[in-house]
Amino acid sequence: MRAVDIIQRKRDGLELTREEIDSFVRGYAEGRIPDYQASALAMAVFFRGMTPAETVALTESMMRTGEVLDFTDLRGPKVDKHSTGGVGDKTSLVLAPLAAACGVYVPMISGRGLGHTGGTLDKLESIPGFRVRLSLAEFRGALAKAKVAVIGQTPEIAPADRKLYALRDVTATVESRPLIAASIMSKKMAEGIDALVLDVKTGDGAFMKAFEDSKALAETMVAIGRGMGKKVAALITDMEQPLGRAVGNALEVEEAIDTLKGRGPKDLESLSLELTAWMLHLGGVTATLDAARVRARDALDSGAGLRKFREVVELQGGDPRVCDNPQLLPRAREVMPLPAERDGRVVAIACRAVGHAAMLLGAGRETVDSVIDPAVGLVLHKKVGDLVIAGEPYVTLYVNDRRRLEEARGMLMEAIRFGPEAPARTRLIHHVIS
Amino acid sequence: MRAVDIIQRKRDGLELTREEIDSFVRGYAEGRIPDYQASALAMAVFFRGMTPAETVALTESMMRTGEVLDFTDLRGPKVDKHSTGGVGDKTSLVLAPLAAACGVYVPMISGRGLGHTGGTLDKLESIPGFRVRLSLAEFRGALAKAKVAVIGQTPEIAPADRKLYALRDVTATVESRPLIAASIMSKKMAEGIDALVLDVKTGDGAFMKAFEDSKALAETMVAIGRGMGKKVAALITDMEQPLGRAVGNALEVEEAIDTLKGRGPKDLESLSLELTAWMLHLGGVTATLDAARVRARDALDSGAGLRKFREVVELQGGDPRVCDNPQLLPRAREVMPLPAERDGRVVAIACRAVGHAAMLLGAGRETVDSVIDPAVGLVLHKKVGDLVIAGEPYVTLYVNDRRRLEEARGMLMEAIRFGPEAPARTRLIHHVIS
Repeated sequence: MRAVDIIQRKRDGLELTREEIDSFVRGYAEGRIPDYQASALAMAVFFRGMTPAETVALTESMMRTGEVLDFTDLRGPKVDKHSTGGVGDKTSLVLAPLAAACGVYVPMISGRGLGHTGGTLDKLESIPGFRVRLSLAEFRGALAKAKVAVIGQTPEIAPADRKLYALRDVTATVESRPLIAASIMSKKMAEGIDALVLDVKTGDGAFMKAFEDSKALAETMVAIGRGMGKKVAALITDMEQPLGRAVGNALEVEEAIDTLKGRGPKDLESLSLELTAWMLHLGGVTATLDAARVRARDALDSGAGLRKFREVVELQGGDPRVCDNPQLLPRAREVMPLPAERDGRVVAIACRAVGHAAMLLGAGRETVDSVIDPAVGLVLHKKVGDLVIAGEPYVTLYVNDRRRLEEARGMLMEAIRFGPEAPARTRLIHHVIS
Repeated sequence: MRAVDIIQRKRDGLELTREEIDSFVRGYAEGRIPDYQASALAMAVFFRGMTPAETVALTESMMRTGEVLDFTDLRGPKVDKHSTGGVGDKTSLVLAPLAAACGVYVPMISGRGLGHTGGTLDKLESIPGFRVRLSLAEFRGALAKAKVAVIGQTPEIAPADRKLYALRDVTATVESRPLIAASIMSKKMAEGIDALVLDVKTGDGAFMKAFEDSKALAETMVAIGRGMGKKVAALITDMEQPLGRAVGNALEVEEAIDTLKGRGPKDLESLSLELTAWMLHLGGVTATLDAARVRARDALDSGAGLRKFREVVELQGGDPRVCDNPQLLPRAREVMPLPAERDGRVVAIACRAVGHAAMLLGAGRETVDSVIDPAVGLVLHKKVGDLVIAGEPYVTLYVNDRRRLEEARGMLMEAIRFGPEAPARTRLIHHVIS
C-alpha cells in the first residue's frame, strides 16, 4: 500500500479503507511517511471530506499510535468533558470537582490557550505550586484518590495527532471538520473514559462562529465517540459574549472558586451545573437527567464541590489556601477601571476581541511559544443587557506590562457596544445532541 | 508574505498575485519553503486550478529560478518543438535536422522516456558515441555551428520545476493542468527561443487520453507561451496507435534515418513534415504555412535533412556512419517474428499496451532509475487497417533479456486486435491551435 496511492484515492473522492488509513497514520507517526505526503493528504481531505467510517478509522488509528489509558480497575463511571474553547470559559474548574463529588471519575487531559482562547492548564498553573505535568502513573494515583485529576497532553497520548496538528497549522489544513473532530477525539478517547460530554461553542468567540458549523462539528464528534463504543452527548453553547466576567488565568480561578461557593456569575454557574448533570447522567449515576441536575445542584450547595476542588489542588501540589484567600493568587501590579462615558445598556460584546485584548495584556498566547502572565487580564462588570451609568466602571484591566496596554484598551472599548435598549436575550444553550 | 497564507488563499479559491507566486516558488527553490508546504499548495492547485495570469506567473517564476538562455547573438529565428510524449514518436529526430536545414535554429532541450513513452535523449544515445550531456557552452557552440543541438535537462534550467516535479510525483499532484503546463513551459521558455510548436498527443497512448483534455492542455500552454511574448502553435495529434512502426531506441533511430531518406512510414513522415512547416512558419522563414510545407518537403527530398542529421551526430560525438549502415547501431541478440494466426484486418492497436510491452523488453523505464537497453523493442509490420495473412509476421520483437518476454508477448497479442473489416480511418492531426 503506497502512500501516494492513498493520497490519490482520497484526492479522487474515493472512500479510504480502515487499512489504508491505519497504514498511513502509523507510517506517518513512525516517520516512514514524510510530512510532504501527510500535508498533501490533509489538503485532499480538506476538499473531499471524510465519511463517518473514515473519520472513526482516522481517530482510532491516531489514538492507537500512543497509549490508551485503562482505568477499569477503578470501580465507577469515568466521564470527561471537552470544550472547543472560548473566552472566559472556566467551566472545567467548576464541573470537574462537582462531578467527582457526585461519584464520577474525571480523568481530564486538558489543553493550553492559544490566540483569543484560554486553556484549563494555564488557569490551574496560576495556583501557586499546582503541577499539571504529572506522569501517567501519578495521574492514575491522583485519580484513584480524588476521583479527579487534570494533566496536560503527554507525548504518550496520540503522538500522531500531535505531529499532524503541527503540520496542519503550517499548511492551511486546520479548517477541516473531520480532521478537527478526529484530532480532538483521538486524545479524548485515549483517556480511558466511558462517556464524554462535549461543549461545542458557537458564536463570535468560538472556533466555529456559525451555528450550523458548530452543530456539524458536534455531530461528527458524537458519531466518532459512539462509533468507538462510548456514550457521548454534545451541548452547543453560546460564545457571543465571554462566559462569566473574568478573562485571564488567576482571575478566572478566583471566579471559579466563587462559583463553587455559590456566588459566581449566573451564566457560568448555570452552564457548569448543566454540563455536570450531563456527565452524571451519561455516567449512569442517575436514571434521569433531571435527577442528575438535582445531584449537581446539591454538590454545589453543600460545598462538596468546593471541598473536592481543594482536595485536587492539594493533591497536585498547589496551595489549597487560595480557596479561602484569593490574595494568594498572582496579582497584577496595576488595576485600571474603564469608566463608561455615558448612560446606556450593553448591547453587544465582541467576544473574540475581548479574548484578544486579554491576550495583548499577556493573559494569552499569540503563538505557541509565547510566555503568559498568570496575573493579568480583565473583568467585565457588565454583560449584554446590563445597565451602565456614566462614570461607572464597566471593565477593569489587570496590568503588569504596559507595552500593549493602549492597543488592548482600544480593542476593548470598541468591543463593548452600548445602546439605548437591552437587546433580546440569547440562550446559553442553543442545542443538545443526546 | 507567509507561505501558509499563500496556501490558504489558493485553498479558498482566491487568485494569487504574481508576487505571491514568485515568493513561494523562489522560497521553495532556495529551500526556505519546505516540501510539505509545496505539496499542500500543489494539492490546493489540483482542486482550485489556476487562472491564466497565475499560470503565466508560475511558469515565469519557475523559469527564473534558473538560467534563461540567450541566443540573440545568433542571427536567425530560434524555434523548438515539444511533444507531450507518445509511443514510437521519433518526430524530433526528423524535424530538428529538417528545420535547421531550412535556416531555423533549433536549440532542443529534451527529455527521457518513462513508463510506456519513449524519450528523444534515449533514442539519440543509442547512436554509438552520441553525447547529450553537453555543457551549456558546448550546447551554444554546437548550435552556432550546425543550427541544431540536442541536450538533456541541465540543473541550470528551471531548478524549481525539477524539485517540484519530483515532489508532485509522490504526492498525487501530477494530474493538474496548470502545473503540467507550467512545468513544460518553464523549461521550454528558458531555451532562448522565439517560437514553439507544441505536439500535444491525444488518445490511448497519450498522457491525456481524452481529446478535450488534450485540447485544454494545449490551450493552456499556448496561452502561457503567448503571455511570455513568444509565438506558439499547437497541433493535437493522434496517439491511438504508435507513430511509425518502430518502438525501441535504436530501432526508432533507424526508422528516423529511413524517414530522412524518404522511405519512412507515411504517418511519421507526414507529421514530421507538418511540424517542421509550423516551425518554419512561426520562425518567419516563409510568409505562409503552405510555402513552409514546400520548404520542408524540399529539405527532405533533397537530402538536406539527412545531411544535417549526420552533421549533428558527428558534432555531438556520435558515429555518423550509422546513417549509411544501421548495423552499427546496437542490435538485439534475438529477433522473434510474431506470426498471425488467421487472415484479417488490424482493427485496433492498444497504444499504451504496445509501449508497455516495449518497456517490459527493456526499451523503456519502469521507474526513473531503471536502466534501458538501447537495442531492444519491437517493430509493427501492420498498422490499423492493414491486411494480415495467416502465418505472416505482424510484429517482430527484438530481445536481449527473456525474463519478461512472455509477459510482453502476451500484452502485445492482446493489444493488437484483428477483425474482418478495416475500421474508419482516423486523422493524424485532430486539431490545430494557431
